[in-house]
Amino acid sequence: MAWGTADLEARRWLGRKLEAAGLTVQVDAALNVFGRTANARRPRLLVGSHTDSVPAGGRLDGAFGVVAALEVVRTLAEAGDPAVGHVELVDFADEEGVRFPCGYFGAKALTGALNVDALAAATNAKEVLSRAGVDIGSVTTARGHLPDVAGYLELHIEQGPRLEAEGLGLAVVPGILGFDRYRITIEGRSAHGGTTPFELRHDPVRAAAVFIAEVPAIVRAVDEAGVATVGNASSDGGAINFVAQKVAFTLEVRQPAIDALARAVDALQARLREVCRANECQASMTRHDLVAEAKDGVRLAVEPAFAAPVAFDTRLVDAVEAACVEAGVAHRRMHAGTWHDAAILARHVPAAMMLVASRGGVTHSPAEATSDADLVDGARVLLRAARNAVRVLGLLDT
Amino acid sequence: MAWGTADLEARRWLGRKLEAAGLTVQVDAALNVFGRTANARRPRLLVGSHTDSVPAGGRLDGAFGVVAALEVVRTLAEAGDPAVGHVELVDFADEEGVRFPCGYFGAKALTGALNVDALAAATNAKEVLSRAGVDIGSVTTARGHLPDVAGYLELHIEQGPRLEAEGLGLAVVPGILGFDRYRITIEGRSAHGGTTPFELRHDPVRAAAVFIAEVPAIVRAVDEAGVATVGNASSDGGAINFVAQKVAFTLEVRQPAIDALARAVDALQARLREVCRANECQASMTRHDLVAEAKDGVRLAVEPAFAAPVAFDTRLVDAVEAACVEAGVAHRRMHAGTWHDAAILARHVPAAMMLVASRGGVTHSPAEATSDADLVDGARVLLRAARNAVRVLGLLDT
Repeated sequence: MAWGTADLEARRWLGRKLEAAGLTVQVDAALNVFGRTANARRPRLLVGSHTDSVPAGGRLDGAFGVVAALEVVRTLAEAGDPAVGHVELVDFADEEGVRFPCGYFGAKALTGALNVDALAAATNAKEVLSRAGVDIGSVTTARGHLPDVAGYLELHIEQGPRLEAEGLGLAVVPGILGFDRYRITIEGRSAHGGTTPFELRHDPVRAAAVFIAEVPAIVRAVDEAGVATVGNASSDGGAINFVAQKVAFTLEVRQPAIDALARAVDALQARLREVCRANECQASMTRHDLVAEAKDGVRLAVEPAFAAPVAFDTRLVDAVEAACVEAGVAHRRMHAGTWHDAAILARHVPAAMMLVASRGGVTHSPAEATSDADLVDGARVLLRAARNAVRVLGLLDT
Repeated sequence: MAWGTADLEARRWLGRKLEAAGLTVQVDAALNVFGRTANARRPRLLVGSHTDSVPAGGRLDGAFGVVAALEVVRTLAEAGDPAVGHVELVDFADEEGVRFPCGYFGAKALTGALNVDALAAATNAKEVLSRAGVDIGSVTTARGHLPDVAGYLELHIEQGPRLEAEGLGLAVVPGILGFDRYRITIEGRSAHGGTTPFELRHDPVRAAAVFIAEVPAIVRAVDEAGVATVGNASSDGGAINFVAQKVAFTLEVRQPAIDALARAVDALQARLREVCRANECQASMTRHDLVAEAKDGVRLAVEPAFAAPVAFDTRLVDAVEAACVEAGVAHRRMHAGTWHDAAILARHVPAAMMLVASRGGVTHSPAEATSDADLVDGARVLLRAARNAVRVLGLLDT
């Protein structure tokens, strides 16, 4: 977990590994760890991920991308590859945002996107950071490194079941699905189940069922890559022999493009209104943040109701795809469904990602696993992608 | 509420009214109140309902049928109608079953259907009954009156919105819908909403929605008079960004005939299985009693999971319909959707019912209301129905 002794020890371990490979280690004010050759040029392609995890998390989420990046820079250095001076490893601090409501801490610090006031107001944040050696007042200096960054490549585990289901080991990621989250309530009227015929009911359970059953088709009609989830639903005021008074449920919509996201939400809202009119119920649909429950005294991540989709840099995405072909690794293009440091970086520099298959789609669990073959393929593709990216970004000419 | 001071006082009030009309009052061991002429013949048509109510109930549920029956026997007596010696008023004890889990107490005592052992085991039942003057040990003697009963007519409020919606004041009731109640759980698999595409989900919310949306069409396809309710539904193990693990909901099916009830339940169960197979979820469907929650320290009625439909005696139903025509009261045939003393009586003697419109369908509330015109029409029809019933049951010849 970020800022704990294991997290800090992992960062020191990484520093020792980098130094042992003859690389220069730099730790910024946010505790991001960087590794590059002594005679590195500017600007450079960052390659990496994060090493912090969640309580009872797995060994791959984040850490795999950093270890693979370590192998990439070591390999480039050992081979005397001219790209090595244009590549820099990064291990971002506190990606998960478990300790206080601020995920992507290191990536935000680097890009100047950190809300320091909100962070300072979070319970214990100052103390926790100070104990880890971070001074909130000087965290913003981390952005001084941004002008040196020409791009960012991140290798991560999929955290979903798609690659495994298709028998593939690797995905080239053109972007991250944006999301829009709502809480919907449908207000009806309680009524006796024996004496109230269907046509005289104001049945919110029926209205919700008709609507929820149609959600997948509505979302897919906008864009096949779209997805939506009704993860929580409950009725109120009914009984085994009584029509309910009210139903409340959550709705999350995800789409790869911002206009598709807006169109999907509009279409869902329109259909909700129609279904409620037909069932003589009243609907309300309001944006709703994700507020995860505390677990073992530790509050889990809080996420906003809305996030625009991320479109990665097409040159870097193509560079990753070309790397798959060079490495002979079967792959597909696939949007990521979870957020990553790359999403923060992509607002400022060209970025792209690749994902390796997650066994059973499991993540944030000790059962997190990827086959050794896929892990090795991921690192092989990352090496070639880094070389390609250095070339397409024109860094060899600087 | 049954067995309280107001209930006992209402029964004494009824006795005084009957005596003032020159009628003979009899109170049996179950505290059922009967009223007939001194020279009544055997067997006789019972006409009545109950005077007990529910906590915060209305003034019409039960009491209206008893007061209307009082007016019927008084009118027959005043008019010197030859039918009067074949008609007997009844005010059944404890129809609502609020104090302990035994509704239709008086009607069951009269028909020998009372489970005295279960009653004696109910908390406080012995004490409550004893304080009201009822000895549990001798309640079964009430059945001694059954051989004198040739039939039963009951006038009640609709407790639903159908008559009002159709602009009618009265319904002739050919029977009472039977019901079958279930608790259904659909077990799926929790999954991340961003990384798990629709086709790889085991989404119990989606499966439940597809099934619940189809319930009305499935039930109506068996018999247009059928109705069904999903009154309670809730998901478990999901979040705004996570597919749920499980959904649980109730399902009540009502049909006017027992084979229609069985066919509707079979059709629903088959469709549930199909929908769950398509969504790779597991369903379980088990019979479930109605166990109403305690309210202000008073436990509300408990009802079984299953009750076979009641078909009233066609001669008496026709006698009621003829009475509507004679009285010039617009009406329709309509199954009752709630249980009544008539359902208990119908197992032993010819019985039938009529219902008057409930304003807004409201019942078990102080807002329970029926227009004066409909109340009067109800009593006018009950008078004529009693005379017709006496004739079709051949009582005038005894």
